[in-house]
This record gives sequence, structure tokens and C-alpha cells, in this order.
Amino acid sequence: MNFELSPKAVKYQRQLQDFMQAHVYPVEQDYKQQLEQASNRWSTPPLMTKLKALAREQGLWNLFIPEQFKTFGGVGLSNLEYAPLAELMGRVLWAPEVFNCNAPDTGNMEVLLKYGSAKHQARWLRPLLEGEIRSAYAMTEPQIASSDATNIQCSITREGDNYTVNGRKWFITGAMHENCKIFIVMGKSDPTNPNRHQQQSQILVPADAAGVEIIRPLSTLGYDDAPLGHAEVRFNKVKVPKENLLLGEGRGFEIAQGRLGPGRIHHCMRLIGCAQRALELGCIRANERQTFGKLIGEHQSVREALAQSYTEIQQARLLTLATADAIDKKGAKEARDLIAAAKISVPVMAQAVIDRVMQIHGAGGLSDDWFLAEAFNYARYCRLADGPDEVHMMSLGKQLIKRYSQEPPHG
Amino acid sequence: MNFELSPKAVKYQRQLQDFMQAHVYPVEQDYKQQLEQASNRWSTPPLMTKLKALAREQGLWNLFIPEQFKTFGGVGLSNLEYAPLAELMGRVLWAPEVFNCNAPDTGNMEVLLKYGSAKHQARWLRPLLEGEIRSAYAMTEPQIASSDATNIQCSITREGDNYTVNGRKWFITGAMHENCKIFIVMGKSDPTNPNRHQQQSQILVPADAAGVEIIRPLSTLGYDDAPLGHAEVRFNKVKVPKENLLLGEGRGFEIAQGRLGPGRIHHCMRLIGCAQRALELGCIRANERQTFGKLIGEHQSVREALAQSYTEIQQARLLTLATADAIDKKGAKEARDLIAAAKISVPVMAQAVIDRVMQIHGAGGLSDDWFLAEAFNYARYCRLADGPDEVHMMSLGKQLIKRYSQEPPHG
Amino acid sequence: MNFELSPKAVKYQRQLQDFMQAHVYPVEQDYKQQLEQASNRWSTPPLMTKLKALAREQGLWNLFIPEQFKTFGGVGLSNLEYAPLAELMGRVLWAPEVFNCNAPDTGNMEVLLKYGSAKHQARWLRPLLEGEIRSAYAMTEPQIASSDATNIQCSITREGDNYTVNGRKWFITGAMHENCKIFIVMGKSDPTNPNRHQQQSQILVPADAAGVEIIRPLSTLGYDDAPLGHAEVRFNKVKVPKENLLLGEGRGFEIAQGRLGPGRIHHCMRLIGCAQRALELGCIRANERQTFGKLIGEHQSVREALAQSYTEIQQARLLTLATADAIDKKGAKEARDLIAAAKISVPVMAQAVIDRVMQIHGAGGLSDDWFLAEAFNYARYCRLADGPDEVHMMSLGKQLIKRYSQEPPHG
Amino acid sequence: MNFELSPKAVKYQRQLQDFMQAHVYPVEQDYKQQLEQASNRWSTPPLMTKLKALAREQGLWNLFIPEQFKTFGGVGLSNLEYAPLAELMGRVLWAPEVFNCNAPDTGNMEVLLKYGSAKHQARWLRPLLEGEIRSAYAMTEPQIASSDATNIQCSITREGDNYTVNGRKWFITGAMHENCKIFIVMGKSDPTNPNRHQQQSQILVPADAAGVEIIRPLSTLGYDDAPLGHAEVRFNKVKVPKENLLLGEGRGFEIAQGRLGPGRIHHCMRLIGCAQRALELGCIRANERQTFGKLIGEHQSVREALAQSYTEIQQARLLTLATADAIDKKGAKEARDLIAAAKISVPVMAQAVIDRVMQIHGAGGLSDDWFLAEAFNYARYCRLADGPDEVHMMSLGKQLIKRYSQEPPHG
Repeated sequence: MNFELSPKAVKYQRQLQDFMQAHVYPVEQDYKQQLEQASNRWSTPPLMTKLKALAREQGLWNLFIPEQFKTFGGVGLSNLEYAPLAELMGRVLWAPEVFNCNAPDTGNMEVLLKYGSAKHQARWLRPLLEGEIRSAYAMTEPQIASSDATNIQCSITREGDNYTVNGRKWFITGAMHENCKIFIVMGKSDPTNPNRHQQQSQILVPADAAGVEIIRPLSTLGYDDAPLGHAEVRFNKVKVPKENLLLGEGRGFEIAQGRLGPGRIHHCMRLIGCAQRALELGCIRANERQTFGKLIGEHQSVREALAQSYTEIQQARLLTLATADAIDKKGAKEARDLIAAAKISVPVMAQAVIDRVMQIHGAGGLSDDWFLAEAFNYARYCRLADGPDEVHMMSLGKQLIKRYSQEPPHG
Repeated sequence: MNFELSPKAVKYQRQLQDFMQAHVYPVEQDYKQQLEQASNRWSTPPLMTKLKALAREQGLWNLFIPEQFKTFGGVGLSNLEYAPLAELMGRVLWAPEVFNCNAPDTGNMEVLLKYGSAKHQARWLRPLLEGEIRSAYAMTEPQIASSDATNIQCSITREGDNYTVNGRKWFITGAMHENCKIFIVMGKSDPTNPNRHQQQSQILVPADAAGVEIIRPLSTLGYDDAPLGHAEVRFNKVKVPKENLLLGEGRGFEIAQGRLGPGRIHHCMRLIGCAQRALELGCIRANERQTFGKLIGEHQSVREALAQSYTEIQQARLLTLATADAIDKKGAKEARDLIAAAKISVPVMAQAVIDRVMQIHGAGGLSDDWFLAEAFNYARYCRLADGPDEVHMMSLGKQLIKRYSQEPPHG
Repeated sequence: MNFELSPKAVKYQRQLQDFMQAHVYPVEQDYKQQLEQASNRWSTPPLMTKLKALAREQGLWNLFIPEQFKTFGGVGLSNLEYAPLAELMGRVLWAPEVFNCNAPDTGNMEVLLKYGSAKHQARWLRPLLEGEIRSAYAMTEPQIASSDATNIQCSITREGDNYTVNGRKWFITGAMHENCKIFIVMGKSDPTNPNRHQQQSQILVPADAAGVEIIRPLSTLGYDDAPLGHAEVRFNKVKVPKENLLLGEGRGFEIAQGRLGPGRIHHCMRLIGCAQRALELGCIRANERQTFGKLIGEHQSVREALAQSYTEIQQARLLTLATADAIDKKGAKEARDLIAAAKISVPVMAQAVIDRVMQIHGAGGLSDDWFLAEAFNYARYCRLADGPDEVHMMSLGKQLIKRYSQEPPHG
Repeated sequence: MNFELSPKAVKYQRQLQDFMQAHVYPVEQDYKQQLEQASNRWSTPPLMTKLKALAREQGLWNLFIPEQFKTFGGVGLSNLEYAPLAELMGRVLWAPEVFNCNAPDTGNMEVLLKYGSAKHQARWLRPLLEGEIRSAYAMTEPQIASSDATNIQCSITREGDNYTVNGRKWFITGAMHENCKIFIVMGKSDPTNPNRHQQQSQILVPADAAGVEIIRPLSTLGYDDAPLGHAEVRFNKVKVPKENLLLGEGRGFEIAQGRLGPGRIHHCMRLIGCAQRALELGCIRANERQTFGKLIGEHQSVREALAQSYTEIQQARLLTLATADAIDKKGAKEARDLIAAAKISVPVMAQAVIDRVMQIHGAGGLSDDWFLAEAFNYARYCRLADGPDEVHMMSLGKQLIKRYSQEPPHG
């Protein structure tokens, strides 16, 4: 065992730190201002465009791309090497996009890398890798409990050389953005298939196809997450050529599974970045202000809150790194217990840490003068994104019972 | 002991329930729409004006006014009798205003009832009781830890027949509202007084006085709480006549203490209303949707979450009622342990209950399609409003140690 | 509503306080010593015999007997009036027996009061009410999950004028005691009855009947709870006359339900007494010792721990009193939601409070120099006694979903 | 980074697993029986003697000895390599002694390795390494809050060629054991030294020195932890030759610090073994029994409890391993944040995991039919051993505030 980062990871970590320090932290208020003053809330703030160019110039671009797809870009990092970089990016909520490493585009690019045809890749993956367009992943539906993917009702029906996509989706992150050009849509192509995991397919739907209707933006805890946003979208009998189907009919569930492993870890690492930054802000604040004759940081309960937070962050970071390593070495399927463990523990940890630090900041901690409230919202949201934690606990618990009850290892 | 509500309380409870059912719940979406479409986000939606008239007509007006001030209005309810009514109002976040029972106006009216001169009452209390104007209470400051009131820096300086108020405040609830006409401002009139609790005074500052500057609205967890809002305000050497001083120089801390007892309980009861409604929504949702072959409500963990929530709500409600009763019988000072206990437990309970119910609702639970997210924000905010919970735990803990270490009662 | 105890309750509360102060607290170490030095660990320490006589003399005897059975003894207290007395008794783990108010005898006496024939009452209830004999309630079985009563395997078979009881039970509290003369045994008389709640019967089995075999004492967290103890017992084809059957064949489940309402509340009140005493000990300790230049009680985290504990105790006490009141007014069946709420929250609260206070005491807090460790064990045990909390959450959750999903009351 | 164990660690892990499987698990009940039936509860059960010989024969002996002291024994393992072995040993509470790797002897041997003179090592270290004698570490005192070491009152006074040790200690683990031959005693040699960390010294006191008085065994949660036990001990003006002083006068605090780093990690790893075994037992149980028509393990809340436990164990294990690695690479001093983090999180995690699994087992889970209750006690005890968690949170919090407030790294 060796708990030190690889030299390659360290190199990029330093470079990224420098970049954040020089170019991102100083403009956080400016970014917010540009967003607030934009005539279109769903457009790219000029600052972002500038920073993207800069990041790309410095080779900090598409770092998320796994080694095996290195020909498509990136610098050939393993998940384990990428994880601390995602953490750094996570310290500013909009920073990942600077490096073309933001959700849901990373996940969508991975789908196209793994499951897209050469034509799909030329048409959609390339501009995504260039950061020219944005994409959305349309899975969750408002009328049913989407945490059980077999509930999905959106239909994908073959008619001649086309498929017709019909259904309603919501919480489609990124769909509000003016540059969002492509949806990956999960629907049912074979709703009566006795194998409930072969009823689904995934298909590419251009945002400008006839019948694609953006109904409204949705907020979470008061945030609309502009300029990406979470949209409610209706696919009104949208026709797309049959070539737009990914991988093959009935393989939608398989693609969904394949997409989620690294994706969840990326969320986790970004949330660790949020929690770590919150901890640092808490420490700074604790040393700035006085109550009842001493610094806030001299009150034992504040010290305990910070010590507890540090401990939880360390544990979460190590778990996420170990999970990334397992994905690298054994693949997402074999690493599924760890992936579930990270998914069910890191967002809730980040929420708890940020909650404590908000309390240390007083009412201001809930405002947008710090990044705390928005990061809290991100953490809370991730307890539901990619399925509510409870679903992952169900699978993990089931799996554990099976393993240990069948072959009690020792004693 | 008797755990049944008084006939009077029951009567008003039923009447209020009917009112909510007939007039409030049905227009929740309309209210939101009026607010969103208003040209001025800080103005009263027409619906509110209409409902206020209706409530007043039915005698559901100023119910918060304590018995001893019955001549000023209300129907002569004790805190204990009022508490379940505040709970009912709390089920819709903007509903308390319909009955002229919303924070911070209720607390401000109490200050004027208790500590205002006849002139203050004629000038400011009357229109407040009529619901014609709104008010704000300016205590918290951005530069210092306001949870320790002795840190306050805003100055109140006597010059001839005037006082000059100079300082910066924030999280001044209600100050954004176009009808906000009066501020009660806490400041230091005698900053070098060796008794740190006699340095402060409270003074009435008309909103239109020269030098009162509304700097910006502040949000909490992404909500701006329009149309009341939480403002940052600067008092730039604002001159007001000396008669505007409340009670006397050096008595600001005393007023602050007197204001907070019942006020905290009102927040608590409203939050119990939030939590109770969330529980009911959770039960409805649990019975509507299926995952993995059964209703959500058939999963044991969902049942446990709801059972746990019910239990916590019952406990919180009883504690709050017992506290209200203690205030009625012994006064806020003697009831301070219970007040602290309610303050430190009810908001955090409401936050936890709503968090669970949001989880049961999936991503939609975080949106504004339900009242959950906004109620969550209210609960979170109340852990800091009227001082962070930690300050109240400090006092309560100190008090307990003193009591039990000096006269260990038994064993 | 009225949160004050009835004058009758207050009178007995004072009398009991005085008794505890004068006769119980001063001999806690002596009691422990007598127990440790006894040649038979399962016999009554002489101190207990003496104190029982004294308590009886003072009229502090059988206080648990509900009003409607006043002719059998007690002073005609309602559950609500009795509750604060049970709390006081709970401050010393062995004290309830002094007043003939200890589990499981109280519950067993209630069974005989409610469901026993005149003959059962003459033969077993009378000496129990006199405190001359002790009793046990045999329900839980080692081979099955007894939390689901329909799993029970012990058989009760009619053969002529006798029933034969055959089965194995464990955690039979009181069964080790030398004075334990009677078992109330739950078993199946009709195991194939399609109504799973009519398969069970309850029957009286004298401890000296042939075939009653005490196998061993069981401990919980290292405590054997002498002199009562928790035994594993085998009923080896024990024959008892048919008259020993309680109420009628197939009514065992009904009796079990009837027994548990007040019984659970008694446990809860006693545990509140444990928690309250722990809180007081914590306050005393916090004021006695210094670390890092200040009293332990001056560290903010200790104050928070005590404030939190006070709050939780207040809430638990109010919930338990409200539950007792509901049982008095509506009967245990109608009060079942509250009974479940108390059962699932009070023991876990007591465990948490005591855990905190142990921490304040340092290593000594885990020893038997204080009552903390033993009280911790009692609290932990009660999370499983009368069914694990999870079973009660299941029922309560189910009930809530049914109620609120069928008639959403408001909004 | 590399999350795989070194080949050396894997080799010993396998060997140890085989040993546990073949020789330890099968005799757990026998060991308990030998202990219960022993005429002297504080003597070594014959089984232990036999197993020690066997372990030694197989080279599984003194594995804890750090690489740099390899000449004294062991096989040259780093802390990181030793950690998973300590976890395996921790699965049976008495197993570490089989491998001469039990607390407090390991810590005491480390003191002698690091700070003992050649004479000390010949006289006391050698027989300890052979497993021939046992030792105790006497630090905690009953009259003061020992968590602040500067409170210590035991005096160590130089008189001619002797030191006189005078004071009272308690919770001296191992002191009850008949083979305990040597105490390392912490006391004050210079109580008025203005540097509060130079007032203390540590000295070797033979158990048979005149004036060493074992007063009584102490229990924790009902367990006496025989045959090691936790004793109250009085040193009644015990005279020892001046050579018995360790390292030098005034260096007691320094030794205490040096002893605790690896020692705490050993406790942590053993507790992870406890928690892991509890998890496995919980899985087995969940698959064995039915309630309400399904296996316990099919109830969603049980699955969540197990999933949660797995996650917490993984996090704790990784944190402990990372801490061991940091000690190896940077020394205990530089690794102190991680050591504190492990100390404050692992015992409380183990307590929580075992608590859940006890609940899954029903009342039996609290008895001694499983190892759960005893392991729970061990976990609870470790939250106080080596200082209560609160003290470590205080230092860690202070340290974090200092670090991050002085040089806010990014943003």
C-alpha cells in the first residue's frame, strides 16, 4: 500500500492549484455578476469562455478522459489520478466546466466514448470534447419513481428507418443551456420484455429535433443552477433516424450502468472539494471573530465541529480514492460495493460538514456571500442524483448479506 | 395535567383550519405566480390583500396578541392557546401574514405593546395592528459576531433633542418590503459602560428618515423570501427625535430579551406546522408510487422514517406547548430554560423531518413543486435567527450546571 | 391544556421523593454489597425486605394499580398520575421493587387483574400484590425471531383436563429469583389457525410444576441483573390443569397486546428517571473538575451536551405523560400511536444521554462507582424488550401512511 | 497511490487468517469456560498458554515490533503492514495476546524499546517479549481529570539513590493479572516547574515492590475484562532505585506522547476487526430468520443498516491505514492530525456498527452468546482510553484553525 499520489497526479494537482489560484478564485464574484446581469440566464458568461481557452492552452483540458481513450484527448490519467483534480475543481461550483470536466457532459462523453458509433463520435463527441456544445442526459421522469429504472415510461418506437421518442422527463441537467445540442434519452423500446432490464434503450436526440420541448427550469433549494439548469422536457413524438440508437435495442440499462461508475466518483470528489473548502473557511472564520470574550475558535464545540469535519473529509477522500483505484483495476462492475459506499456517504458527509460551517458563519453563511449555501445545495442534490441513496443501500445491503451469509469467512 | 386544548383554542383551531382549507391551500400556486410576475418583487401580492381582509372579517386577526394587551386587539388568547394556531398558519409559509401574525411584525408589535410610549403606539403600533404598514427589527451586523449582543457596533448618540443612529445591519427581515415603514434599531448609546448589558439602547427609525439606505437583499439557501426579504441596511448618521428612544437609554438589552421569549415559540410552532405538513406529504407520496415491486411506503426504511418523524414532531409540539404554558404562568424569564430547549430543538427537528420527506419525494422534493424546499430553508434559517443555537445551549448548559451542582436534588 | 401535575400526583411525588432521599439513595452502596456478598445471587437482599415493609407502611405500595382496579390496592392513580412516580423510582435501578412496582411483576399483575379468573387472582395475584412472591412472563424464544409473535413455537396442547406446555424460552426476566413462583407462558394452542393472531394462548405455569427447567442466567452488556435475572427456561412437557388458561384459547395475542400499553410507559418513565439522574450527575461532575485551566463545565461542548440532554429529557417526559393521558382517556388501543412513539424514542434517548454523561465522567463513568453503566444497560435493553423498536416503527409508519394518504387533512 | 497490501503483509495476513480459523475461532467457548471456571479469575487460561506456544512456533509472534527494532523480534513489519494483522487479531477480544500483541503490553514494550536503558531492557523487556510476564501502565488517577496530564498528582521524589512513588491510580489495565510484574508509572517529579509539560517523569515500579497495593478490580459496562482487568492501585511511598527512571527527570510527558501514536492505531485496527466481524454476523443473522413473512435481511431498513456499516468500516479502515503509513513515513509527531482523526472516529464507529448488529440479533445480541456485547464494551471503553475523544478533538481543532487561518491555501 502506498498513500502517496503518483508523480503525474502531483504534477497536475500543482498545475491545477496554480490555475485556480491565479484565474478562478479571483473572479468568483465577477462570474456571479456576469451571470446575474446576462440577458439570457442560460448562456455562457464571457468569463467562462475566456477561462476555457486558457485552461485548454495550458493542457488542463478533458483530464477526465480515461487512459484507454487517450486518443480522444486528455493526458491519460487513471480515475485514481483524476480524482484529486476533480476535488480541486469542485472547490468552485462552476470551475469544472473551465476544464471541460463538468457533469453531465463528462458522463455523456463517456457514453459516446464507450458506446457511440464512429458517426456518433464524429457528430457529437468531437464538439463536446472541444467544449463547443453541451449535452444532457434524459432519464428521470416526473410521473414515476425513476429510482427504479424499470418504471420508466418514455417510449422509443421503431417505425421504418426512424425511432419515435415520446415521453416526459425532468431534472435534465444542462438542458436549459443555449449550447445544449444533444440529449441522450433513456426510454422503453420493448416494454413487455420479460427481462425487465432489457426493456430499455438509449438514443441520441438532437436538441433541435421537431417535438423537443423545454417546458420549464426546475430549482433545487432555491437554486436554478444557471447557466446549466435542470429542465423539465417533453419529447413529443420526436422522430430520429434509427442510427441514433446507442449500442442496440434493449441495452439501455447496460449503458446506464456503465455510465454511472466513474460519474458518481467524480461527483464525490467534487463534493470533497466543497467540504474541504468549507472546512478551511470555517477555520478562517473561527479565527476572525469573538464571542463572549474569546475567539469563536476557542470555544470547544467549534473545535470539535472542525475536528469532526476534518475526520469525515479524510475518510470520504480515502474511500473515494480507493473506489477510483478499484474501478481502474477491476472495472466498475467489480467495484460496485465501493461505488455504492461512496455514493451513499460522500454527499451526506458534505452536507453535514457544510451545515456545520454555515452555523459557524452565522446568518451570512446561508447567503451567497460565501459559496457555502450553493455547495450545500449541490451536496443535498447529489443524495438524489443518480438514484436516491436508499436504492444504493438496498443493493449494497443485499449484496453483503449474500456474500457473508453464504461463506462466513472467519469465525 | 391535561393534554387537551381549551375549548377556546379548539374553536379557533377549527375556524382557522376551515379558513386554510377554503382560502389558503387552494391558492398556493396562484400566490407564487403573482409573486413571480409582480413588477416589484417586494410588494404585496393582490391575493394577500384580499385574504387579509377576509381573515379580519372572520375575526382571525392579531390572534398573537397576549391576553394582557387584549384592548389592543386579538381575542385574548394565552400563548398556550395561540400556539396551535401558529402551527396551522405555519403550514403555508406566507399564511401568517394573512392573519397579521407574521414575523417580524408580531415581535415588533410586542415591543411596542410592552415598551412603546402612547405616542409610539399611536404612530406606529396602530397601523401595524391594522396591517397597513410593515416593520423591521435591526439588530444583526455584518462585521461582528452578533450572537454576542455586546459586540454590536451601531451607535446611537444623543445630540440635543435628537439621536444620531450610525451603523450597518444585515439580515433585516421585512426591510425590503415596500410597506416597511419603521425600524426598531439596536445600537450602543453608552459603549464604555462597565456593565456590558447596559451599553445598548433601542430606537425607532422611520424608514423614510434621511440616511436610511437599503443596500441589497440577501438570500438564504437560494431563497430571497420575497416580498419580505432580508436586507442589508446602512444607517448613515440618521437623525431621529429623542422621543423615539424606547424605554430609556441603556435598556436595549432588556428589550431584546423581552422580545424574544414568545417570538421564539411562534417560530417553533410554525416550524412544527411545516414538519407536520411534510410528514403528511410524505405519507401521501409513500402511498402513491412503486419501486421494486412495492409501494414506497411498504419499504421498512420509509416506514421507519415516517414513524421517527411523527415521534419527533409530537415531542417538539409538546415541548413548545409546555413552554408557551410556562411563559403564560411564570413569564418569559422564569421560562427561559424551556424557551432555550425549544429554540435549540425544534428548528433542527423540522430540518431533519423535511430532509427525510424530500428524500421520499425524489428530486422533485427539492424543487418548488412542493413547499418542502422552502420550508427546509425556513427551518435552517431559524437555527441562526434570534442567535445561533449554540449561544442558547451555552446559557442553558451553564444554568443547568449551576442548578444541579449547587443543590443536587436527589441521590 | 394544563401542564401541571394533579394535586394528588404532587402529593405522592413529594412523599416518594422524601422516601428516596431518606431511605434509598443512602443505601445504594449497601444494597450492592449485600447482593455481591449473598450466598445466593438470586435471593432478596435483606435491605430490600426492610425497605418494602417501610414503603408499604407509608402507603407507597402498588401505586401502579390503575384506578379501575382500586379495590385490589394502590391509591387510585391514573397512568398520568403514576408516571412521575415511576420516574422517581427509576432513579435507582432496584428501587421500583421497594414499592412493589417493578417489571415484570407489574405487567404480570395487570394481566391477572384484567384477564385472571377469581381463582387465579386468589392464588397468584394476592401474594404478588403483597410482594410475597415474584413472577415471570415467558414469551421470547431463542430459536425464532420473537419480534413477530406469530413465529412462536412453544406449544400449549389440551389433553383431557390438562394442558401440556412444551417449549424453550429465554430472556425471561425474574425467572432466576428464588421467589419466582409463577410463569405466564405464551404458546401456540392452535398453530394452524388461518388467523395468525388466534393461534396463541397464554397459560399460568407454577414454577414448581414438573418439567420447568431453569437452564441458565443470561447477561446483557455484562450485567446479570441479579437478583431478578434473565433466564433461559425450558418447559419440558409441563402439565397444568386446564383452568390455568387465561381468558380462553386463541386469545394469547390479545392478552399480549393488553399487557403492553401501560407496561411500556412504565419502562419509559423509569428510563426518564435514569436519564434525569444522569443529567444531574453530569452537572455535578462538570462543576467539580478542571481540565486545561477551566472547569469541565466551562467547555462549550460540555454545556451543549448537557443542554441537549435536558431538552431531550423534557421532550421524552412530555411525550410519555401525554401517552399516559391518552391511555387513561382512550384506552391503550386508541393510544397506540403514542405508545409506539414513546417506545421507539425514550430508551434510545436515555442511552444517548447516559452515554454523554459517561463521557463527562471519564473512565470512571463506565464503572460501577456510578449508576451510569447499569442504567445504560437498562436503556439499551429496553430497545429490544417488548419487541425491537423496528417492529413498532413498522406498525406506526404503516398506520401513519394509511391515515394521511386516505384523508389528507389540509393542503 | 496504491491501495493494495504489500506482499509481505498479504503473506502474514493469510497465515494469521489460517491460524485464527484453525486454532482461535473454534475454541472461543472453551476459552470462556476456562476463564469462568478458573479458581483465580486473574490467571492465564491453559488454552492461552498453548496457543501462545503454537503462534510463536509459526512465527506469528511480536509482529507489532516496528522495523527499526527488528533486532528485538518480530518480522520487520511497518505499522502499515502490521495494521491489517491487528485487525484480524481484533476479531476475537483475547486473541492479540496469543501473538504477544495485546494492549497494554505492546505499548509498554514500545516504551522500553524506545526509552529503556540496556538494563531495563534486559530485566523487563526481554521477558515481556517472551510473553513470560505482563506489564501495566499507570497514568490515570481517580481524584483528578487525567485527560489533562498536567493534573496528575502522583509524586515521584528523589531521595538519595532512590525515588519514592506515592499516589493513587485507576483503570490500570493488566494490573490484576497474576503475571503482571512491572508498572510504568507516570508521576510528577517537579510539580512547580513553570513548563507544565516538564513536571512529569515516568518510572519503572516492580509489582512486588513494598507499598504497591492492588485495591480492587474495576468494571466497564459490567465487564471486568479478566484475566487482564482494570485495577485501582495505590503506590504507598514505594521506593525504587534511581536507575528505574526512564529517560530522565521531566521527560514523562514526552514519553507519554511517544507511546501513544502507534498504540492508538493498534486499538483502532482491532476495533475495525470487531466491527467487521459484527457486520458479518449481522449478515448471517439477516439471512437466517424471518419476520412478517420475509427474511430479516429483506427488510429495507436492515439492508440500509448493513450497507451503512460496511461503508463506515471501509472508511475507518482506510483512515487507519493511511495513519499507519503516515507514522511510518513521517513519525508520530508529524502524523498527529491523522492519529487524532482515527482516535476520535474509529471507536465511535465500532460502537455504532455493533449497536446496529445487536439490534438485528434481538435480545440475544446483548448476551454473551455472541461476542457483540463484549466488543461493544471494548469500543465504548476506547472512546475514553488514552484520553477522552474530546481532548483529541480540542487539539486537532486548534491545529486546523491555526493551519488554515494562517495560510488559507486556495480561494
